[in-house]
Amino acid sequence: MKNLTLLCLLIIASIVFKSHAQTDDEVLKTIYTSSLTEGESYNWLNYLSNQIGSRLSGSLGAERAVQYTKEELEQLGLSKVWLQPVMVPKWIRGAKEYAYIETVPGKTSTVNICALGGSVATSPLGIKAQLVEVHNFEELEALGKEQIEGKIVFYNRPMQADLINTFQAYGGCVNQRYKGAVEAAKYGAVGVVVRSMNLRLDDLPHTGSMTYDDLPVAQRIPSVAISTNDAETLSTMLKLSKDVKLYFKTSCKQLNDVQSYNVIGEITGSEFPNEYMVVGGHLDSWDLGDGSHDDGAGVVQSMEVLRLLKKAGIKPKRSIRVVLFMNEENGLRGANKYADVAKQKGENHVFALESDSGGFTPRGFRFDCDEANFNKVLSWKELFKPYLIHYFEKEGSGADVGPLKTDKNVLAGLHPDSQRYFDHHHASNDTFDAINKRELELGAATMTALVYLFDKYGIK
Amino acid sequence: MKNLTLLCLLIIASIVFKSHAQTDDEVLKTIYTSSLTEGESYNWLNYLSNQIGSRLSGSLGAERAVQYTKEELEQLGLSKVWLQPVMVPKWIRGAKEYAYIETVPGKTSTVNICALGGSVATSPLGIKAQLVEVHNFEELEALGKEQIEGKIVFYNRPMQADLINTFQAYGGCVNQRYKGAVEAAKYGAVGVVVRSMNLRLDDLPHTGSMTYDDLPVAQRIPSVAISTNDAETLSTMLKLSKDVKLYFKTSCKQLNDVQSYNVIGEITGSEFPNEYMVVGGHLDSWDLGDGSHDDGAGVVQSMEVLRLLKKAGIKPKRSIRVVLFMNEENGLRGANKYADVAKQKGENHVFALESDSGGFTPRGFRFDCDEANFNKVLSWKELFKPYLIHYFEKEGSGADVGPLKTDKNVLAGLHPDSQRYFDHHHASNDTFDAINKRELELGAATMTALVYLFDKYGIK
Repeated sequence: MKNLTLLCLLIIASIVFKSHAQTDDEVLKTIYTSSLTEGESYNWLNYLSNQIGSRLSGSLGAERAVQYTKEELEQLGLSKVWLQPVMVPKWIRGAKEYAYIETVPGKTSTVNICALGGSVATSPLGIKAQLVEVHNFEELEALGKEQIEGKIVFYNRPMQADLINTFQAYGGCVNQRYKGAVEAAKYGAVGVVVRSMNLRLDDLPHTGSMTYDDLPVAQRIPSVAISTNDAETLSTMLKLSKDVKLYFKTSCKQLNDVQSYNVIGEITGSEFPNEYMVVGGHLDSWDLGDGSHDDGAGVVQSMEVLRLLKKAGIKPKRSIRVVLFMNEENGLRGANKYADVAKQKGENHVFALESDSGGFTPRGFRFDCDEANFNKVLSWKELFKPYLIHYFEKEGSGADVGPLKTDKNVLAGLHPDSQRYFDHHHASNDTFDAINKRELELGAATMTALVYLFDKYGIK
Repeated sequence: MKNLTLLCLLIIASIVFKSHAQTDDEVLKTIYTSSLTEGESYNWLNYLSNQIGSRLSGSLGAERAVQYTKEELEQLGLSKVWLQPVMVPKWIRGAKEYAYIETVPGKTSTVNICALGGSVATSPLGIKAQLVEVHNFEELEALGKEQIEGKIVFYNRPMQADLINTFQAYGGCVNQRYKGAVEAAKYGAVGVVVRSMNLRLDDLPHTGSMTYDDLPVAQRIPSVAISTNDAETLSTMLKLSKDVKLYFKTSCKQLNDVQSYNVIGEITGSEFPNEYMVVGGHLDSWDLGDGSHDDGAGVVQSMEVLRLLKKAGIKPKRSIRVVLFMNEENGLRGANKYADVAKQKGENHVFALESDSGGFTPRGFRFDCDEANFNKVLSWKELFKPYLIHYFEKEGSGADVGPLKTDKNVLAGLHPDSQRYFDHHHASNDTFDAINKRELELGAATMTALVYLFDKYGIK
């Protein structure tokens, strides 16, 4: 009897000992260890990249990704998983593009190009015209109609190499790609060729979205990208002779909108179920690679956040949703739809985090929030230090969470190391082999840690 | 005349304005911009990796690297450049290794192995024996002579995946490789096969140094590595049957020592020429890849430090030396020689920095120094912040600068992001394509910035 009592006491003591509230340090350690030693993110991304592949909105790949991620989320034992319908644009590349440079009549060399997303095609015979190189819209304006009309405008402003944050360098260049055609069309250009948004000198053209604004269909001119190496070569050729011509032929087409989906999973909150916290990435990708970094990584990291929370036995106070947004690349329809529906339903989104900057080693986050919440984040800096997470800056959380912004809530974007990102961005080498398993897993754990802390302590 | 006076005044004013002392912020900005926009490190490494290739001590590649780096340093306009003779061991791999696993007599499958550096060869016919798997020397001891004698010991302790610093995970495993043979020989093992020191599951065996301590030659047993995937497979096979045998044949050989060199360049100090500051990496590499990360990167970054200082117009107060050490991998002879000569000459080495952790994005430094100097470093933290350099920790500066340690001086090691390092370390994929130009250049700039600051402010 005495022994039995002792045994009971021991059992009770062990339960009490085991159920002591973990410190935040301990919880973070559990999250990181779990991600690095028994994570699912890398396996999921392997499937998404190597079994499904590219996932441009409206494509078969995009629809297969919707089904796959929904099925995987359904296996996590969340409170609910559903698809949110959204109409998305459907642009197709068509036959592989073809282009050559003609230095003197009859002397040609082929060059690798890709149509920009949203571009009209050339005529079936392609176009051939003299090239005129510019570096910005001011140079374009200075040349004017007289020197532009009937020509192909070659935008060749490189990304600025001395900026440490490569996203800033991208921001300083991308208007050539996005608005290049509509600006050149003003002066009668017949086509546009853009230097790829890539800091590295290599041979791969990078696609990406472009706009015609409200330009009448008849005035829309085709727009393509060439690699950084080819841009350098073309520029040298043009210094030697102004008569260099480019021929190119594209077969891309904008079809009617089609129905697609955001994929959503939720762990309903235990205390404040009507306060929503979102973590997400975008399911669609460009069509040249398999979209492993942009944004397969963000998708699987976001899914992993909910899995890691459950795995760590965390029962969130607030409702945590993973949202896999459709159509970030060429429309942002999924993000807008999610925000519209949330508004209609009066859902209070207190926090939203996205990962859409590649699957590289995480360095920290960027936040759109007020000072009080930002200071709260800074108070957690020491918790993140063992994981080398040190970067906490304001502004620039991300495109997909953007439509959820209110005066009060907190938006955040994971900020991984950015040095290699634009080597792969929107190009045929955005593929699974460029993903490092540990870097991907560290990102997922870092996101989970932030979600855990914001759920536990709430926003200001 | 009046105009002339005005002109003179304007010229003087412009000189004065231009020659205002730059702030440290400005100097660092100049250094980083120069490295990222007109750096030489990537070009040098391209030559070292793709024109010369692997550089094991005593090999033709090592000697060509000595000549090449000397010639390149001579073009930088340094105060002096010289070779410091040092005798180095010469181990050669010989014919490609061959191995197979035999599950039952006659049923074999080949497996990719590599001899460990310093290992003796098998007999010309190779060896075949039953395998016994252990994870550490305690398990080995517990099995004892009875179960080890006549067998091949298979060391299969994986690197610990939940450690954020992968060098720490390496440190926790590497005794299997370095001391595995000498420990197994105690119990009569006939050979050793070691799981590669790699966090990733892949198909590449990783070499690296091993020792026999003072074991008589007749008792030395051959030692090889297999890939992480093959280690997993072998372990599974052994769970299914204890009768699994391994056959392997190696032809490696330890030859007589040969003469080689450390390559040294110096900018003699303008105020304290007898105070020396060293920056260096090691010229030798293992023979399987081309040694781009280990340690071609450190070599070219160290050379770049002196070039960037000159380029920025900095005239150091102290004598700054780049030292390209020979034989870090299998002997440390170059580092010991450099320190011995320095001691003989009574040279006061106040500071030494090495880069030998790969050419990945720099995160900071590790220091061996007293508190006063460490606090001085911490006072520079804000200067490094724009470059995302945030990691300043004590201990672990590096092997090549180690012999220079005194009570007073400061040793430092560049600490790049470590997640991918062991994917390539000592394996056939430590090649130039695994180097990102910007990451390499950021490392060189970060080293230059630290050297600049320690030269300007001195050590405590």
